[in-house]
Amino acid sequence: MVVDASEVARRLAPRLAARAGEYDRAGAFPVEDFAELRDAGLFGLMVPGRLGGVGAGFAEYVAVAYELARGNGATALVFNMHASVTGALSAVTEELAEALGVPDAALAARDKLLADAAAGSWYAVAMSERGAGSRLSQLSTVYEAVDGGYHLKGAKSFCSGAGHADAYLVAARSAADPAVVSQFLVPATLEGLHVEPTWDSLGMRATSSHDLHLDVTVGRDTLLGGVEGLALVVAQLMPHWMVASYAAVYVGVARAAVDAAVEHVTARGLAGLPAIRSRIGRAEASVAAARLVVAEAARRVDEAPGDPETNRWVWRAKLLAGTTAAEVAASMLEAAGTSATRRGHPLERLYRDARCGSLHPPTSDVCADWLGVAALGGDPDREGSAPRW
Amino acid sequence: MVVDASEVARRLAPRLAARAGEYDRAGAFPVEDFAELRDAGLFGLMVPGRLGGVGAGFAEYVAVAYELARGNGATALVFNMHASVTGALSAVTEELAEALGVPDAALAARDKLLADAAAGSWYAVAMSERGAGSRLSQLSTVYEAVDGGYHLKGAKSFCSGAGHADAYLVAARSAADPAVVSQFLVPATLEGLHVEPTWDSLGMRATSSHDLHLDVTVGRDTLLGGVEGLALVVAQLMPHWMVASYAAVYVGVARAAVDAAVEHVTARGLAGLPAIRSRIGRAEASVAAARLVVAEAARRVDEAPGDPETNRWVWRAKLLAGTTAAEVAASMLEAAGTSATRRGHPLERLYRDARCGSLHPPTSDVCADWLGVAALGGDPDREGSAPRW
Amino acid sequence: MVVDASEVARRLAPRLAARAGEYDRAGAFPVEDFAELRDAGLFGLMVPGRLGGVGAGFAEYVAVAYELARGNGATALVFNMHASVTGALSAVTEELAEALGVPDAALAARDKLLADAAAGSWYAVAMSERGAGSRLSQLSTVYEAVDGGYHLKGAKSFCSGAGHADAYLVAARSAADPAVVSQFLVPATLEGLHVEPTWDSLGMRATSSHDLHLDVTVGRDTLLGGVEGLALVVAQLMPHWMVASYAAVYVGVARAAVDAAVEHVTARGLAGLPAIRSRIGRAEASVAAARLVVAEAARRVDEAPGDPETNRWVWRAKLLAGTTAAEVAASMLEAAGTSATRRGHPLERLYRDARCGSLHPPTSDVCADWLGVAALGGDPDREGSAPRW
Amino acid sequence: MVVDASEVARRLAPRLAARAGEYDRAGAFPVEDFAELRDAGLFGLMVPGRLGGVGAGFAEYVAVAYELARGNGATALVFNMHASVTGALSAVTEELAEALGVPDAALAARDKLLADAAAGSWYAVAMSERGAGSRLSQLSTVYEAVDGGYHLKGAKSFCSGAGHADAYLVAARSAADPAVVSQFLVPATLEGLHVEPTWDSLGMRATSSHDLHLDVTVGRDTLLGGVEGLALVVAQLMPHWMVASYAAVYVGVARAAVDAAVEHVTARGLAGLPAIRSRIGRAEASVAAARLVVAEAARRVDEAPGDPETNRWVWRAKLLAGTTAAEVAASMLEAAGTSATRRGHPLERLYRDARCGSLHPPTSDVCADWLGVAALGGDPDREGSAPRW
Repeated sequence: MVVDASEVARRLAPRLAARAGEYDRAGAFPVEDFAELRDAGLFGLMVPGRLGGVGAGFAEYVAVAYELARGNGATALVFNMHASVTGALSAVTEELAEALGVPDAALAARDKLLADAAAGSWYAVAMSERGAGSRLSQLSTVYEAVDGGYHLKGAKSFCSGAGHADAYLVAARSAADPAVVSQFLVPATLEGLHVEPTWDSLGMRATSSHDLHLDVTVGRDTLLGGVEGLALVVAQLMPHWMVASYAAVYVGVARAAVDAAVEHVTARGLAGLPAIRSRIGRAEASVAAARLVVAEAARRVDEAPGDPETNRWVWRAKLLAGTTAAEVAASMLEAAGTSATRRGHPLERLYRDARCGSLHPPTSDVCADWLGVAALGGDPDREGSAPRW
Repeated sequence: MVVDASEVARRLAPRLAARAGEYDRAGAFPVEDFAELRDAGLFGLMVPGRLGGVGAGFAEYVAVAYELARGNGATALVFNMHASVTGALSAVTEELAEALGVPDAALAARDKLLADAAAGSWYAVAMSERGAGSRLSQLSTVYEAVDGGYHLKGAKSFCSGAGHADAYLVAARSAADPAVVSQFLVPATLEGLHVEPTWDSLGMRATSSHDLHLDVTVGRDTLLGGVEGLALVVAQLMPHWMVASYAAVYVGVARAAVDAAVEHVTARGLAGLPAIRSRIGRAEASVAAARLVVAEAARRVDEAPGDPETNRWVWRAKLLAGTTAAEVAASMLEAAGTSATRRGHPLERLYRDARCGSLHPPTSDVCADWLGVAALGGDPDREGSAPRW
Repeated sequence: MVVDASEVARRLAPRLAARAGEYDRAGAFPVEDFAELRDAGLFGLMVPGRLGGVGAGFAEYVAVAYELARGNGATALVFNMHASVTGALSAVTEELAEALGVPDAALAARDKLLADAAAGSWYAVAMSERGAGSRLSQLSTVYEAVDGGYHLKGAKSFCSGAGHADAYLVAARSAADPAVVSQFLVPATLEGLHVEPTWDSLGMRATSSHDLHLDVTVGRDTLLGGVEGLALVVAQLMPHWMVASYAAVYVGVARAAVDAAVEHVTARGLAGLPAIRSRIGRAEASVAAARLVVAEAARRVDEAPGDPETNRWVWRAKLLAGTTAAEVAASMLEAAGTSATRRGHPLERLYRDARCGSLHPPTSDVCADWLGVAALGGDPDREGSAPRW
Repeated sequence: MVVDASEVARRLAPRLAARAGEYDRAGAFPVEDFAELRDAGLFGLMVPGRLGGVGAGFAEYVAVAYELARGNGATALVFNMHASVTGALSAVTEELAEALGVPDAALAARDKLLADAAAGSWYAVAMSERGAGSRLSQLSTVYEAVDGGYHLKGAKSFCSGAGHADAYLVAARSAADPAVVSQFLVPATLEGLHVEPTWDSLGMRATSSHDLHLDVTVGRDTLLGGVEGLALVVAQLMPHWMVASYAAVYVGVARAAVDAAVEHVTARGLAGLPAIRSRIGRAEASVAAARLVVAEAARRVDEAPGDPETNRWVWRAKLLAGTTAAEVAASMLEAAGTSATRRGHPLERLYRDARCGSLHPPTSDVCADWLGVAALGGDPDREGSAPRW
């Protein structure tokens, strides 16, 4: 059983770091990292204690993600997806379930999959689609009711952990009514589920964020919540999982970049150069600030989920984590110099990984727009000069 | 009696704001503001309850300074000086006093001046000198023991509140032993104390940070601590008052700039322009982050004063508050446009005020160097490519 | 007669600089500067040789404006307005005049006012209006034909040189047909012309950019071009005068800031500090680049006026001059430190002056939008996310 | 025979671009590109006409390098090395040769190798060493006179084109007198010359900048200049080849990034998003400015080589090209979004390539220091807070 999850993650991080270069180079899924996460009980991080898990809140998740990302950002990013699924499901209270009309059988199914997570299963998210991005309103994957369950058909992209997860949370649109978007937890072993290895990326190369092709029939109990059409509702109720769960990962990556630069310039006797000191001083302050912002957002998510001010912190966290990571890693590479650009040097990888934070939807530009609209008294989820999702 | 000091400050802020333009234009001391601070009991903010004060810690000070600065940064900056004097004196524990060899009479004198503050007196700081800046090791003001007390002679610059304070904390070097630097609380009414109205500045114009010429004889009880040579010790023990007490002020100024920009563009129907939204969104996130950093530094000062990690937060707070204020105010003026550059427009003043934060010693460049040395494992108070003070 | 106009300006600059602080403080028009510009023959800079002028092209104007601005940006900014009027009028070729249907009498009137300029008259521009900014399409000042001429009625803002110019170029809309916008050269001595001294600004304080109230009757020969409705045509044909004529001024201001910082830190023995060297090195490179961009735009204006690529350079020049000036001045103040923020110190003034460049319409944000639309293959004068003028 | 070399390069660029992704992925030398450069006569670009070359000056080289880099930055970077060797050798005038005591035989040898270049040979530079960087004063490769020539022994790093060039310009220190540094043109076919394939880098992956191990005996005619000890002299006389010859390459890379972003967002229908327009507008202006700075530096190198102001432009060009490339590529990737981070997308490669410019010695931080010292009236080649080479 896990006692202090972030301490556990801190102890794992150096082991992840030692393997990160190789997984990055090969663009291979960090199988060993995930075995260790499982063994350490972290798959149950967000699962309530009554189901065998740690019962962590968002703040504790954030602390764990930060520590894991100091080891390997890609591993932390895939873990984030599993945490999102289990965290969001765990956060559905009895009151909410009742309000949404969730039947008892669906709650039992939910508990089952959470208990499975605590016992060592993990889940990936298959939401994005080429063209639609992560906008639920634009999905082309459809489902229809069939005898004993549902048939799902479509293709997903950017599915982190594809080929390795035990099940996939798949968002799909009803063939009968396109306005209805539902989510299913599709077991990985099903016939008709095919991973196309498309992921070959600038950064976060070890996430195996491949394409997933679906032409599957699933049981009725795989419909999350047991009622169709809950996907958009849950997304709106828990923007932190959609907007800011990456944030902690990118702050961890940024911190790893500072640490790597300190180690590099110290080893080469460059620590006395004023320009290098200045770069490192500014970088470490930025990282400390971003970490604080992410922690504050998380604290508020736990204390006042859905509150407008909570949501603003969530968007600030996404914005600042993404911009800080990219700027810090670029500056640290410049502090360290050409020798740190060799493949295999941690900064070479961290520079590429760090660039990706601002690009995850909602991108930094979208975050700035959202926050601007909010500050100007508008409704940032509805107004704006860029599509939100 | 003050109950919730930051709430009191929040209520005063709009009144300060309403007068800020006029004091700025005239470069006049905010006499009315200070009368209201006195009436509200804020002069006793840092004074222990047993002496009639609020007994606030650094975190509460920071919250008050932020709120006051949203009204008028200059007022908050002068108040900061008084808070530094009373806060540092209140923070000298019995243990510390004993370790430093402070005689009982000096503790009584200390209590007397703190009680006076709670009763409505306020104190300014006369430390900086032309040429020496705020480096204690470079002072040219000297004192020598005379019958019944000390004679002080020299000139101070950047003495905020000069001509208005009830007494001045004056740092001077012993004529007998130049390595000994002591501090005196010199009553404003003394013969031989002359304010030269030199302050006429880009920003923070209402602080009356004039020159102070001293050729005065003071009683023995004005020597703070009752023992010579304590000035440098106290400075080192309480870097937060020397390094970061301005930080909250500049975050308040930055926040005021965002608020003024929001009001301006809303009034002119420009809130829908994407470039303006983006500027405001990024600015408000930066201000929120800087505020969090200052609060974190303050929290740690209260919990673990003098701890190396506390000190790092103190320097981060100074760095980020200064850079954030300048960048945010510049961007907000650009969002608002030419019409906001008319004198009398809040943004015109805030733009000038905000520029000053990075320039207060230790400057942003010095902070970056200090933090870089610390991150690289050095002793940032001794090493570095720029003089610290 | 002027031989090398930019050399003349270079020689005048130190005299302008010596007076700049005083004019800035008082917010007073630089009467002595303008007397010297007149004596040096610079009022005829843009006037063809056949009419007694220098016959300079845009590139030569840019060189002159840069040198003047190194002395006093405000003086250069007012001079820019006169240069715009005389430059645009001089640039109307016989072919263009014929194409536009300009009658001979109007050409004679044009020559008369250009000859007057060469002889020592100078003209201000009264185009902007409160609310409309500098968008010709939004003007509320109207004119109507009356016996022997026209009656003009309305109010203008940001009229640099108001109260000092010999005549004002006034843009007005026809009362009969609001789509028709014409320009008049209104003599300063006319009854019904009233200067309201509203100009009291953050920066460029000596431009006397006051409001101008008009309720005047002017002769027929004051209608520029002799035909109604030419204002928009000319604006479109000569975007350089509307978009980029300030650019050289702000590069000159930025250069003055670097020079002032070099002088300041050298005098104080700070030239060896690495952070200061780095700031000055980066600043001087930015200024050199911006100067080159402005010169390139000007060269192309002379060689291929109206060419799409010429226009792109014109907008780039505006964008880069504005952003460079603001960033450089802010960094130079930070290099110089608190002592440079005293009023009267050149950097204190230059910091305020430099901030204004990005704000002149088209603002930097509008320039970025314009250039982005152009790069993306659109028509930047018609499309865009912000009003152009 | 080449008529307009930059036009030739412009026509080659799309062919280079089409192959760039594959060479980058494999980290393989662009063999086909170099075959085409040879066929197009570009190996003789810097060779005087009398020896069969184009006889280009530095400005023409810069135009060629920019165009090639729009196709493939790595190809342009290797070509730059060959151009540096042939350009520097061609620039040794008879007067200079006489002043340096160059014997006639050495001039003949020089002419021979230039004529070979015009006929299709190309040369790489083997100067840097692990630990010494590119500082000539720190080399550990030594040579000694032997019967009939010299024996060279040592190891070089970052030797672009290693394994593909026809000969290597090797800098080595005299075993007899360590203060004497000489350069040799070592034929690639010699026994004792071994390429160790160490190059595997973040960006510019196709340059094959491997390590080169030398334990070779060369003929007397391979000593460049025929006299020992000329290496440092030539480096000081031609800083443009050492400091700024990369600059044009990185401006070309930055321009390619803007072009790729324009193509990407246009193809995806994102060209109307304001944040994207703004990013592209600012980026294209920065690239235009940097290109102008590089061209100005080159123009001055041709007109007044060695002049202090020429040298300042050379360092400005290096600084601005490096910082512009990195910033522009990062912003363009952010404009294009996640889909542009897939390997194989031009922006993915350009983002990595563009990062390298600031890191080539002299790094951006060193350039800023150099320029700051120069602006402050110092001797930037001798003073400074960082080693120059």
